[in-house]
Amino acid sequence: MKAGRFITLEGGEGVGKSTQLQAIVDTLHRLNIETCVTREPGGTPMAEQIRELILGQASEQVHRLSETLMMFAARNQHIQEVIHPALAAGKWVVCDRFVDATYAYQGGARGESTELIAQLEHWVCGELHPDLTLLLDVAPDVGMQRIADRTKDRMEQEAQSFYHAVRQTYLDRAAAEPQRFAVVDANRSLAEVTAVVTQVIEAFVTKSQGNQ
Amino acid sequence: MKAGRFITLEGGEGVGKSTQLQAIVDTLHRLNIETCVTREPGGTPMAEQIRELILGQASEQVHRLSETLMMFAARNQHIQEVIHPALAAGKWVVCDRFVDATYAYQGGARGESTELIAQLEHWVCGELHPDLTLLLDVAPDVGMQRIADRTKDRMEQEAQSFYHAVRQTYLDRAAAEPQRFAVVDANRSLAEVTAVVTQVIEAFVTKSQGNQ
Repeated sequence: MKAGRFITLEGGEGVGKSTQLQAIVDTLHRLNIETCVTREPGGTPMAEQIRELILGQASEQVHRLSETLMMFAARNQHIQEVIHPALAAGKWVVCDRFVDATYAYQGGARGESTELIAQLEHWVCGELHPDLTLLLDVAPDVGMQRIADRTKDRMEQEAQSFYHAVRQTYLDRAAAEPQRFAVVDANRSLAEVTAVVTQVIEAFVTKSQGNQ
Repeated sequence: MKAGRFITLEGGEGVGKSTQLQAIVDTLHRLNIETCVTREPGGTPMAEQIRELILGQASEQVHRLSETLMMFAARNQHIQEVIHPALAAGKWVVCDRFVDATYAYQGGARGESTELIAQLEHWVCGELHPDLTLLLDVAPDVGMQRIADRTKDRMEQEAQSFYHAVRQTYLDRAAAEPQRFAVVDANRSLAEVTAVVTQVIEAFVTKSQGNQ
């Protein structure tokens, strides 16, 4: 039995995450790999309810620390109920956003302390780290233009400076862990981005199977 | 203008908290003190939604750390949106359960690490500590008998060993901070307990007004 691998997909608004998530899953299926596709915040019924609290239009100011703690509460449910069991069963978990997103959104963009996030990551994630993180990178104005017609949630309504900070934090994290991250230039056409993502996944599968 | 004071009411199940909360508020009103009466988990619309997630019947196992993080997310909203503004406006805040309950329920009874709870308390509460905590103490079997006919939430359905641990943690905290805690023997009749609670509040008001 193949050991499970943990792949995460990250990026700001309008980077084409949904399309590329499908490209990743299609590639894994073509290579006969059993997958578990999930997302954050969310992934369990309770974590999805927390997602609604975080992203919905609140009747009160949602304070930064409350948001960070709710993110990790949802993540804890998700890891315990979905990610760990799937990996233990040998499945490959493909997750739309994970802990890097907390560093980018709550940390870089909202200003939450990196030490506080790292402590929560230590408590909640323990030894669980993605084996591969695909970062879809676009210039913020390209991303904002792509989602211009979309009904926006609370995060998507933030100012452009917010998205610059999100992008920069993602790029900094990718630079610090080049062995885990694959940064994909997502300013190009969908077909070009999909081709690159597919190549990255194929290469990762080949490398993983060589390590069995 | 009188500076606000922060009074919390603590105790396990069936100690008569609702009745004594009213006795505290009635006493403060009789002494012309403007109050803000609130509760945890809850106290703001978002925190009340988190309360429902924590105490409701979940479709999945609610993991201990998720519960602890949600408690502190709700507490952060409550402190920022309700408690700090009320105290700043000179009101006396009377809160049905606060951080001692997290040490008793998530810590003592569920086994969450005290260091983890203390770190979260430091982040969320900062310098905010109750000026007076009334602990209503009953033998667990007395408490359980009193709530026997009640429709129970997820916490109230726990085993008796859980309530022994809740009670012991409360008593240990009271012993460690005798200047903050007033432990009231709530095994007695409602009228007797109310008389003691009223005395405690009157004495605290006299002392507070002497300190102006």
